[in-house]
Amino acid sequence: MARMPRFERHIFICTNQRPGADPRGCCAARGSEKVVEAFKLEMVRRGLKGRMRANKAGCLDNCARGVSVVVYPEGVWYGGVTAEDVAEIVEKHLVGGEPVERLRLRDGEFRAAASGSKA
Amino acid sequence: MARMPRFERHIFICTNQRPGADPRGCCAARGSEKVVEAFKLEMVRRGLKGRMRANKAGCLDNCARGVSVVVYPEGVWYGGVTAEDVAEIVEKHLVGGEPVERLRLRDGEFRAAASGSKA
Repeated sequence: MARMPRFERHIFICTNQRPGADPRGCCAARGSEKVVEAFKLEMVRRGLKGRMRANKAGCLDNCARGVSVVVYPEGVWYGGVTAEDVAEIVEKHLVGGEPVERLRLRDGEFRAAASGSKA
Repeated sequence: MARMPRFERHIFICTNQRPGADPRGCCAARGSEKVVEAFKLEMVRRGLKGRMRANKAGCLDNCARGVSVVVYPEGVWYGGVTAEDVAEIVEKHLVGGEPVERLRLRDGEFRAAASGSKA
């Protein structure tokens, strides 16, 4: 059944924290909270609040390539995102509809499916 | 550009916690952690791990109608979800492709767009 989507785009930023000794590292240690804040500020600044939403998420299972971000409904994944990348993602992708290719995770870069990662 | 999606379905469960005095309440107080665990267990039990993923999320902005859940890429929203509903959502919707209508949030039920809610 046809409906207006609740959000035109819904952005999830991994904020998972792993123990310091884990060789993969984690998004929290790479500054995910700053990325979340940058998305939220940019949403407000651009007048996108209500049309789009940025949310923290549990482990998106790309720990070694964090900060991980996924944008729905299109299902575009980004890796290695920093707060400095956020304005470009918002401008080009969320507003302009063109993903930022230099930050995209490619199919072969995703972690193997069977994993023991946390939520 | 055509790609295989990373996950056939990606489920986000709000686990936001508000101060006890907030009249809207919050998903955490309504048992969101149990809903997350139920989704994860059901994913494993049904052999869906790797094809689909359930993640915790920050505030999905439907605090009064929690536990809130959204399923992408289709963007189907549920409210009032309990751990007891999870097997039905997995069976009918995630596997069978038919949303569970009795739990769906309707367009008019979403909170007004301009909000001061947290991530």
